[in-house]
Amino acid sequence: MRKIAIIGVGLIKWGELWETSLRQIAAEAVFNCLEDAGTDRIDSMFIGNMSGGLFNGQEHLSSLIPDQMGRNNIPAMRVESACASGGMAVRTACIEVASGISDYAVAVGVEKMTDISGQEATYALATAADQDYEAFHGVTFPGLYAMMAKAHMDRYGTTRDQLSSVVIKNHLNGSMNPNAQFPFKITSEQVMKSPMIADPLRLLDCSPITDGAAAVLITTVEEAKKLKRQPVLISGFGHASDSIALSSRKDILQLEAVELSAEKALKMADKTIKEIDFAEFHDCFSIAEILVLEALGVVAHGDGGKASMDGLTALDGSFPVNSSGGLKSKGHPVGATGVAQICEVVTQLRGEAGERQLKNIKTGLTQNMGGSAGSSVVHILEVI
Amino acid sequence: MRKIAIIGVGLIKWGELWETSLRQIAAEAVFNCLEDAGTDRIDSMFIGNMSGGLFNGQEHLSSLIPDQMGRNNIPAMRVESACASGGMAVRTACIEVASGISDYAVAVGVEKMTDISGQEATYALATAADQDYEAFHGVTFPGLYAMMAKAHMDRYGTTRDQLSSVVIKNHLNGSMNPNAQFPFKITSEQVMKSPMIADPLRLLDCSPITDGAAAVLITTVEEAKKLKRQPVLISGFGHASDSIALSSRKDILQLEAVELSAEKALKMADKTIKEIDFAEFHDCFSIAEILVLEALGVVAHGDGGKASMDGLTALDGSFPVNSSGGLKSKGHPVGATGVAQICEVVTQLRGEAGERQLKNIKTGLTQNMGGSAGSSVVHILEVI
Repeated sequence: MRKIAIIGVGLIKWGELWETSLRQIAAEAVFNCLEDAGTDRIDSMFIGNMSGGLFNGQEHLSSLIPDQMGRNNIPAMRVESACASGGMAVRTACIEVASGISDYAVAVGVEKMTDISGQEATYALATAADQDYEAFHGVTFPGLYAMMAKAHMDRYGTTRDQLSSVVIKNHLNGSMNPNAQFPFKITSEQVMKSPMIADPLRLLDCSPITDGAAAVLITTVEEAKKLKRQPVLISGFGHASDSIALSSRKDILQLEAVELSAEKALKMADKTIKEIDFAEFHDCFSIAEILVLEALGVVAHGDGGKASMDGLTALDGSFPVNSSGGLKSKGHPVGATGVAQICEVVTQLRGEAGERQLKNIKTGLTQNMGGSAGSSVVHILEVI
Repeated sequence: MRKIAIIGVGLIKWGELWETSLRQIAAEAVFNCLEDAGTDRIDSMFIGNMSGGLFNGQEHLSSLIPDQMGRNNIPAMRVESACASGGMAVRTACIEVASGISDYAVAVGVEKMTDISGQEATYALATAADQDYEAFHGVTFPGLYAMMAKAHMDRYGTTRDQLSSVVIKNHLNGSMNPNAQFPFKITSEQVMKSPMIADPLRLLDCSPITDGAAAVLITTVEEAKKLKRQPVLISGFGHASDSIALSSRKDILQLEAVELSAEKALKMADKTIKEIDFAEFHDCFSIAEILVLEALGVVAHGDGGKASMDGLTALDGSFPVNSSGGLKSKGHPVGATGVAQICEVVTQLRGEAGERQLKNIKTGLTQNMGGSAGSSVVHILEVI
């Protein structure tokens, strides 16, 4: 396989984008990405999108998005793995280029979630859970993650303040990200005063409903030398699945898909977790970031809450997580999230993250998951 | 890239499968495929499915299907390109193995379309068209293909009997396929007496609503030698897109995505269309098979209707098309169709097609498309 690199990243301002459509925001992110890369060459395109069908009454984005760009004949395909759709699109583009099938592949993630009501969006998101054994009985994602949070508090003594420390840190980071949906700081008092969604998770423990898109251009390290930007090496990727229903897991606090996907990516990159300088994690809920921190072995099982509270994952901590603001502050347009994580790591490794720039970093990791970690995909990126 | 081959195929009886669920039929097809191959090894899985969201309220099949199989941790991903989802899943599995990322990859296509009403299914299918510029205004797929049929009749003098010849031939073939949804012959009179759906297309010009699944196991030619079955080489694949709305095409009778995807696959296999012995085409409507015959250059533009009528594409013709019965007789569970096409070509090349067995064949082609050919994927398979 050929060595591959990211040569361009494209983002747009995320939020409730009522003036623009699904196809427009996807095309805009790709155009921004091409402009960043300084080329307009695309050999193939991979589109991460969870549910154009339920959110927009529109499937077949493989035809829609190249069409909108005026590039009708680009070979394109949509990939889906619930909220891990974006990461899966990047992985597929990586293999497309590494194998030699394409020299330039775009991965674009997009979700337009506010075209329907909040109740309908909650239903659409719940289709990532087990329809027969979970969703049908009324459980939605805040409920599933609340069960994990309760179990974590019960088994390890994780506290309310420890959960809050995750979202306060992510909002602080997001306040320095101009593309974030909610680019402002929040306090512990605000978290505690926000409405209870599913005990113990309050509104400010939950990532929001977002319209957004993100794109990256992948090429070979060899080809990248011809372009103006400093390429960022993709040295590893891995994905794995787990049971879709939480009730089928051996232990609801052990995210096996996350463990296995990280193990595979690290092995491919010939690295251990200790050699990773920073990461973007899938913090769909405050508890999720804690569970991922433990699943990746950054800290021992049970220590995630305390480590967050102690500042391990802050911008100036020894393992910064979600410098972008994470899903919590940046927003969570589900199909776009995994691609935007890659954009953040590339931006950091290029030293272009402005106010939120991390120091002395060479290697970053992204972790993106679907449902209650029924699927997970991890990428490792390095300065060349 | 490594040379790759199909080593196992798995089908189930298609129809209105009200007693079984989406997850069950997908798992059954994969188990049948593993049994056929004589191995239970799966390194990764690619799931072709158009709209679990709209048909079944279930996304995240990448977690659901390995889970149902009791193989939780298999890395899996769903791919979608409307009715070309199955073919795209096969293409993705091919690259996965050719690149060396996996040694054994399953592509499984599945769609469970009868869990909702016919009207809801028509809406779900129409999400493969342009929601803003086609579906919103009331046009559905029979209407889109009817426009193509009308234009073909007008420009080239294609007749009603020529359209009928396609579906009569496919039902004759399907009558010899025990897995077909409608395994019986039809007559010209039956076509003419069937209800008008969208002039000139009658009910018997249209492929049906179907529940079904199909799976193939792909490995390297090298690995395949260790297994009991005769492998079938996958020597070429290609895909391409076109505008999603018919109104944006230069010519609604020219299927550019089909032309380009075939061109790519043939180039990769180092073949011309004259070296292809038989094919499975995407005959979602009678006119579609005629248009594809022309797009692939088997006959000149305008000659497809006459060629069908003259028996070119019959089992004993010089270029047999849809020996399986095609989408028309075999059924069209949209996400499964592209995978089932591969199953048929493999079954023919193995000489195991029973009553419908073709003679003197070495090389077969599959052509699978989404929407009104807004996307298309082609594979070339050969006896080793």
